[in-house]
Amino acid sequence: MSKANLFYAQSGGVTAVINASACGVIETARQYPDRIGTVYAGLNGIVGALREELIDTGKESAEAIAALRHTPAGAFGSCRYKLKSYSENTREYDRLLEVFRAHDIRYFLYNGGGDSQDTANKIAQLSIEREFPITCIGVPKTVDNDLPVTDNCPGFGSVAKYVAVSIREAGLDVASMCESSTKVFVMEVMGRHAGWIAGAAGLASENEGEPPHVILFPEVTFDREKFLARVKDCVNEYGYCAIVVSEGVKGPDGRFLSEAGGTDAFGHAQLGGVAPMIADMVKQEHGYKYHWAVADYLQRAARHIASKTDVEQAYAVGRAAVEFAMAGKNAVMPAIVRGEGGEYSWSIGEAALADVANVEKKMPPSYITDDGFHITDDARAYFAPLIRGEDYPPYKDGMPRYARLDRVLAEKKLETWG
Amino acid sequence: MSKANLFYAQSGGVTAVINASACGVIETARQYPDRIGTVYAGLNGIVGALREELIDTGKESAEAIAALRHTPAGAFGSCRYKLKSYSENTREYDRLLEVFRAHDIRYFLYNGGGDSQDTANKIAQLSIEREFPITCIGVPKTVDNDLPVTDNCPGFGSVAKYVAVSIREAGLDVASMCESSTKVFVMEVMGRHAGWIAGAAGLASENEGEPPHVILFPEVTFDREKFLARVKDCVNEYGYCAIVVSEGVKGPDGRFLSEAGGTDAFGHAQLGGVAPMIADMVKQEHGYKYHWAVADYLQRAARHIASKTDVEQAYAVGRAAVEFAMAGKNAVMPAIVRGEGGEYSWSIGEAALADVANVEKKMPPSYITDDGFHITDDARAYFAPLIRGEDYPPYKDGMPRYARLDRVLAEKKLETWG
Repeated sequence: MSKANLFYAQSGGVTAVINASACGVIETARQYPDRIGTVYAGLNGIVGALREELIDTGKESAEAIAALRHTPAGAFGSCRYKLKSYSENTREYDRLLEVFRAHDIRYFLYNGGGDSQDTANKIAQLSIEREFPITCIGVPKTVDNDLPVTDNCPGFGSVAKYVAVSIREAGLDVASMCESSTKVFVMEVMGRHAGWIAGAAGLASENEGEPPHVILFPEVTFDREKFLARVKDCVNEYGYCAIVVSEGVKGPDGRFLSEAGGTDAFGHAQLGGVAPMIADMVKQEHGYKYHWAVADYLQRAARHIASKTDVEQAYAVGRAAVEFAMAGKNAVMPAIVRGEGGEYSWSIGEAALADVANVEKKMPPSYITDDGFHITDDARAYFAPLIRGEDYPPYKDGMPRYARLDRVLAEKKLETWG
Repeated sequence: MSKANLFYAQSGGVTAVINASACGVIETARQYPDRIGTVYAGLNGIVGALREELIDTGKESAEAIAALRHTPAGAFGSCRYKLKSYSENTREYDRLLEVFRAHDIRYFLYNGGGDSQDTANKIAQLSIEREFPITCIGVPKTVDNDLPVTDNCPGFGSVAKYVAVSIREAGLDVASMCESSTKVFVMEVMGRHAGWIAGAAGLASENEGEPPHVILFPEVTFDREKFLARVKDCVNEYGYCAIVVSEGVKGPDGRFLSEAGGTDAFGHAQLGGVAPMIADMVKQEHGYKYHWAVADYLQRAARHIASKTDVEQAYAVGRAAVEFAMAGKNAVMPAIVRGEGGEYSWSIGEAALADVANVEKKMPPSYITDDGFHITDDARAYFAPLIRGEDYPPYKDGMPRYARLDRVLAEKKLETWG
């Protein structure tokens, strides 16, 4: 086979370990100098391909690329940009092919969630139709953990670890103070459509009475009376109540609770997230003093407390994506396969992009306890291995040292896009 | 000297390292078996003394006590309870003396902030007046870093490290996505009366353009127009703007910004903190997409990312408190003394409780840049050494293992308090 260039792009919300996948892609590609020329990374994801803004990763040192493994967020820039179907937006697909052709790119690796795998799949189809051979390989990534086929998604294990550690620590804080101060603590976590992240926080509670005491899932319709009764029971029994609430919790009307808060004095929609709303609801009903936290981006960027398992898997799917391409595979994505047996093990399998694109994996109902407020042993068995191991970044003067790339753009060969 | 028992209590808001001080106290006290009998810890602070709920730390294993060094929050329980003056509340002081007498307690070690040092000082005075000899030693603690005399307060260095690491990580996240998504990120941090914590977050920004771009301090009256202009400049120049806002920021009317938000549809005061308010202000003016986070208790409980310097100092003040007592000192508090010279060094000095009680140390104006939005080199020189070093807790199955104490109460000898 002849030598060609490879295009890699990061897509959608970034994670603590998406750069570990980039590291896996680039380090592995460098092991095939006879077959892979330059690895170009899209500046700000697929937008970089459209604009012909291609970062020449060959200009980055081996040290800088190695440092990606311990660097959170998207070092090449990511984007929220979903390509429409070919029939709706022929011009964009034509442009992508034009850019790929101009830069002799015949490998397309797309690192993202369901939407991105759909895009990769469309490009794979188009490449066949247009008789311009591009090998399209997906690289899974999403803190939402909602990709099908793969047992879990790189990025999820680290956010899971962050939320479990955080609620354990904050729970100890509240436990210390509840006699005379805060009795209810609410931590809001991500997961607009599924409760994977909220559920993982349940790992912090290993024994009866340990925080979190209540988890509010998007999968369980919020029942105000039942919730308030449960909080009161916890305060009576344990002295306090630590609550984890998913941003995606919905009320009986099917709307997000966070949208139901009315307007402030200026007529703006309620600014706060669901955490302050829940906390205030408890205060109004029971009078308990509360505190609340919204972790927001802190949770998905928290490389300092990343899961070692997650980092290793993120690297492995990046590496496997290149190896799949080298093996002549196309329109596939490396998937994480959980081994059988009591001891956790994992390996890399293969998923067809067509099976992954636009399918959202929900959390199984068997993961939620009958009362709707916690996780089951089945859920624990699933979540626990994903947060295992620590993988600390290097520190200097008390601060983590994250990669700084030069991000040198390749010379443009085409007309400006716009 | 004859042998007597020691009473130790944790007071006020807890920190990631207050238990390291407890560890220093107990481990050191155990080295004086001829002079110190039992170390009793107040269950929920001074309230435990009033109620005669005294945890017999002698019943805890050496391993459990050692584990306090890496355990956040208050393992014996803390409280928000300020004793009034003796003339206002003779009954409480009498009760304390009664409990101390009944349990042969002649050492009183109080681990807290300014209020607590005031209490310790009052008890010291009373002990002299009543001719009941109690050695009263303060143990400094507060994330607010507002105690005088001591160079810094145990607890502060770890929250400083947490906020600096968090805004560095979240800043990278925003930088990755700003081309097509979030352009403004706001992180709210603690510090109702002083900007120490907000200022420490500035350490994340080491080079021009690095986050945080804007810090809003309680010391600087919020100027809406100037702030909005600065945010716009940052977005234009860097593509995004990462903001750290102290909960204590005040408007021109002298009120907390967080209190100025009006009411929601139910007539409740605005639930959100100052972060969502600031974020929405930017959105209304400039239309930028935003995200915000409120770290709340997560920041002061985050033992997983504690500063090694902070842990060592917290332990050292606990140890020194016992050594002061053994040396016959009274009504003093160990203080952290910064060494002279370019290399950071510290030692333990001595502060009179009378000099510490009820005095709030403000951040010097020289720590804030002329535009009011960032920290100066003086501030960096002060903050930087306090976050140095990592001191990770032990992990098992991916989760930090924190101390679990038995907390066995000593038998009561007095009438029930109430």
